[in-house]
Amino acid sequence: MDFYSKWKKRVELTGSFLCVGLDTHPNLIPPFLLKEKNPVVKFNREIISATSSFVCAYKLNAGFYESQGKEGFKILEDTQKSIPEDIPTIFDGKRGDIGNSSKMYAKTIFEVFGFDGTTVNPYLGGDGIEPFLTYKEKYIFILCLTSNPGAKDLQFHGTPPLYLKVASLVNDWETYRNCGVVVGATKSEYIKEIRKIIKNKLMLIPGVGAQGGKVGEVIKYGGNYLLINSSRGIIYASSGKDFAQKAGEKAKNLCEEIKKWRKKWNVELEL
Amino acid sequence: MDFYSKWKKRVELTGSFLCVGLDTHPNLIPPFLLKEKNPVVKFNREIISATSSFVCAYKLNAGFYESQGKEGFKILEDTQKSIPEDIPTIFDGKRGDIGNSSKMYAKTIFEVFGFDGTTVNPYLGGDGIEPFLTYKEKYIFILCLTSNPGAKDLQFHGTPPLYLKVASLVNDWETYRNCGVVVGATKSEYIKEIRKIIKNKLMLIPGVGAQGGKVGEVIKYGGNYLLINSSRGIIYASSGKDFAQKAGEKAKNLCEEIKKWRKKWNVELEL
Repeated sequence: MDFYSKWKKRVELTGSFLCVGLDTHPNLIPPFLLKEKNPVVKFNREIISATSSFVCAYKLNAGFYESQGKEGFKILEDTQKSIPEDIPTIFDGKRGDIGNSSKMYAKTIFEVFGFDGTTVNPYLGGDGIEPFLTYKEKYIFILCLTSNPGAKDLQFHGTPPLYLKVASLVNDWETYRNCGVVVGATKSEYIKEIRKIIKNKLMLIPGVGAQGGKVGEVIKYGGNYLLINSSRGIIYASSGKDFAQKAGEKAKNLCEEIKKWRKKWNVELEL
Repeated sequence: MDFYSKWKKRVELTGSFLCVGLDTHPNLIPPFLLKEKNPVVKFNREIISATSSFVCAYKLNAGFYESQGKEGFKILEDTQKSIPEDIPTIFDGKRGDIGNSSKMYAKTIFEVFGFDGTTVNPYLGGDGIEPFLTYKEKYIFILCLTSNPGAKDLQFHGTPPLYLKVASLVNDWETYRNCGVVVGATKSEYIKEIRKIIKNKLMLIPGVGAQGGKVGEVIKYGGNYLLINSSRGIIYASSGKDFAQKAGEKAKNLCEEIKKWRKKWNVELEL
């Protein structure tokens, strides 16, 4: 099933826009797990099992896996495979290169690893994005406005500011319904204007939780078609034996909060 | 030894700004090599051996290796290790994320793989670049103006155009002398204005060869402090038993051309 259909079914089932970010690294997981044969895979499986009822997607941050060396590749692959088939998976690698090289990255992410979606950096422009977009069944989240302090350096350059230019380009670039944007939750005042441009495309919103974004505002301005990501705030909720249980509770709470705000702002699915 | 010193010594030794791009993939190498135990490593070693007298650096395109799955990680590592210690190596992965994640990428590239330099995407801004720049002995090439058609989409946005803004930001971001830019050779008319801004920082220039950039113009406008990259045009010069010899000849020719133009435009090292 394609990403969009999977996402839609999950939102209908769970009522939740929550995407859990598996930013998993051996230095960050509960120390008692390190005696396991595959500590990171074990950790991820437990987290997935405890949180899956509350999510519409999982996102894996490539950097955390690559930094584990060649084993990291295997861990990424094993984790991807252990996520239930009906939950869409996102490779968060922010790749982007000239067409020739982007083709290689797209192949890796979608064919080698088998992810349902990915984040892509737009700096190289349309022909760097196109090899990703040819995968009709996948979903491509183009970086638009990010949640970090450095976002001001390039993303606000020019008139209109670059992030709005990128939002418009996403409309131009998309052929199938498989392209959306990444917008940081810490910039929720900007979500409304981006939503106007991209209409019913999916928005992946990181920055809720550890980075301080507010769920209510995100839903008020972002409306439907959201994936609200939380990583550290959920998966590292406890470093004890109860790590999975605590992660499950955090995920449940965020899921409930999302449902509350959807009701409050009257954000009903019209998919 | 740090990247910059290695690069300088190589240019003094060879007279050459040539960087050979090892964009190596099993589908592209001479078919007779596929019976080898490690065809890509074998290919790379032969290419390195045949070209090393003519280069100031090697650049490995991460996409080509990642698309080979978890084996690709090992191949990348083995290739990096087989490059003579005195020749600087560049991981061309165009990574870039928020600080927390960029730290992971920097660790992977510099500590896990042991590369001397890397390309980085500036879209996320200063705090996404900073974790790379803390590695004083390494060299960070920030994407500024690329050689592909899509470069026009974002890189010319605003006044001044975004690529000039990025060049200025590189000056602001650099603390140690370890930060330069990537500028496509197909845009040699712009090299002069970027050089004015970044002064004596290194420029990595892809797009010579298969992408059609002209060496003479690059050196005329870029002056010193260059790495001129050619990938496909050199490493895939022949698909026969003579593949390494032909690659060596192509590298030698490009090295000679570089020396000729350095003389013509009076580009002497003043390092």
